[in-house]
Amino acid sequence: MCHAESVSAPASRPVCVLGLGLIGGSLLRRLADTGLPAFGYNRSTATVDAAVADGYTASADLDAVLRQAAEQDAIIVLATPFTALETMIEAVRDTAPACLLTDVVSVKEQVAVLIDRIHPTGRYVGGHPMAGTSQSGWAATDPSLFEGAMWMVTTHDDTDADDWLAVAGVARSTGAYVVPAANDAHDRAAAAISHNPHLTAAVTAAVGAGESDLALRLAAGSFRDGTRVAGTAPDLQRAMLEANSISLLNTLSETIDRLVAARDALRDHGSVAVLVDAGHRARLKYEAIAGAAPEPITGVRVGEDDWAEQLRRQAHQARVWMP
Amino acid sequence: MCHAESVSAPASRPVCVLGLGLIGGSLLRRLADTGLPAFGYNRSTATVDAAVADGYTASADLDAVLRQAAEQDAIIVLATPFTALETMIEAVRDTAPACLLTDVVSVKEQVAVLIDRIHPTGRYVGGHPMAGTSQSGWAATDPSLFEGAMWMVTTHDDTDADDWLAVAGVARSTGAYVVPAANDAHDRAAAAISHNPHLTAAVTAAVGAGESDLALRLAAGSFRDGTRVAGTAPDLQRAMLEANSISLLNTLSETIDRLVAARDALRDHGSVAVLVDAGHRARLKYEAIAGAAPEPITGVRVGEDDWAEQLRRQAHQARVWMP
Repeated sequence: MCHAESVSAPASRPVCVLGLGLIGGSLLRRLADTGLPAFGYNRSTATVDAAVADGYTASADLDAVLRQAAEQDAIIVLATPFTALETMIEAVRDTAPACLLTDVVSVKEQVAVLIDRIHPTGRYVGGHPMAGTSQSGWAATDPSLFEGAMWMVTTHDDTDADDWLAVAGVARSTGAYVVPAANDAHDRAAAAISHNPHLTAAVTAAVGAGESDLALRLAAGSFRDGTRVAGTAPDLQRAMLEANSISLLNTLSETIDRLVAARDALRDHGSVAVLVDAGHRARLKYEAIAGAAPEPITGVRVGEDDWAEQLRRQAHQARVWMP
Repeated sequence: MCHAESVSAPASRPVCVLGLGLIGGSLLRRLADTGLPAFGYNRSTATVDAAVADGYTASADLDAVLRQAAEQDAIIVLATPFTALETMIEAVRDTAPACLLTDVVSVKEQVAVLIDRIHPTGRYVGGHPMAGTSQSGWAATDPSLFEGAMWMVTTHDDTDADDWLAVAGVARSTGAYVVPAANDAHDRAAAAISHNPHLTAAVTAAVGAGESDLALRLAAGSFRDGTRVAGTAPDLQRAMLEANSISLLNTLSETIDRLVAARDALRDHGSVAVLVDAGHRARLKYEAIAGAAPEPITGVRVGEDDWAEQLRRQAHQARVWMP
């Protein structure tokens, strides 16, 4: 049985990963490789067999896995595609209702809505590791995937401090830095720096390939890098992007507006200066943030008055939680 | 003095590089490092000093460099930014009018127009190596920059076969593959796979940075790779893109049309399927072409009847000239 008062240090508390694709599988491997108790579920027996053959604890029996989670007071990590979340949350509610729940889904508001509707008494602190490749499935998993990555953890004024520390502890134990954020701020950010780039990569690829095979023959670094994420499995891309449709509509509209302005300036004045300059400034700003060691959040004790607001405020200055 | 009949094998014929930035400097270094006679000009004495300090033959005296080219029957390579081309072509016309001329500029029709106007009796076969980084200047030069890269060489029905072989020989001696193409086909291709990707990278960066510092903190691989070329010096990007404005207007308009259709589908039906699927198919097609060893053009002897048309036809099937 899980009890709120039984929160223990993440170093000893088991973690139960539901879904062993790129993110969930890499998480299971990393936790187990560092000696932490971790076990996983996947619907596909082929994936389960591959995980077991690699020495990990995994099963295709969801009910048995969730009973184990309940018995061991495990932290349950939802790591399935968005489309399978509803089924997973129902199963957690029915079999391990008291367990602390987190997730690694690339949108946060819609996951919170699902949990509120299906499992309203559930203890839930959302998460999103900003890591991935264009590959998917167990074969692509990598225990070092999260090393140095940013891992957003839901940080609201009513978030339970012990639960937050437990979820943040899972993230930290993978080598990731924790970025505290509200769900809506996360979803706007994810649209701007992850979901919109999938659409610009797709359109760049489609326009290039539509020209000619000669064009693809001549394609070099700008095309290769600019279209890389278009190689991700389309169903995974759709699940991710369409679950964040409201924020994505905003960033996509801004993208269109800026490109239309660039086209008009190029047609009427022969100049692409405004867009090229804005893009260059933005890239330099990104390089300054991503290229330096992250600065730590300081002076906040999780659980004290206003701790969530203080964490969010420092995260908005690009600081990370790295105790 | 240069004479058309004095065409010699590129292995022994000197190469004179005008402009020692990333492309021109890397070319000078590669040719000299492989023992070929090569010398260069750059307007900046700081660049010339750096090249000389690294053991290369370079000068900031354009007239002296061009006199040497004329005396040695050198192949002259225009490697300055587009905005300096007019001055260079005038100097070549005045001092080394009989020398074979090529270039490494990223557009071909506008260069041909310039040469026709300024130096109409000049022998010219255009070129464009598809290689680069977001860095620029002598410090960024790299003799291996062209290894395995595609190097477009202008291939028209009235192109002189010996001149074509000489220019293609320079490209081959850098480790690049030669892609024969007409200038207009090249410019459409370059817009689709190089110039348009600069604009989509710029807009992706600008929209991401416009959201928040939290967004840039959360940015991961899709943003990093998708915005890389936005880091190129803005003046170099502008010179390149604005010189290909007609082709770029077409690809930019297609980009906008596809994004507007995606936005409408997302807003009205919650789906990004059409764009994501098209982008994925395009990326797979690119990977199939770029990921395999290039297939050679076969069965064409340069100089025989219809040689140029035969080369172009095979290049349109993504084959390369690699004798």
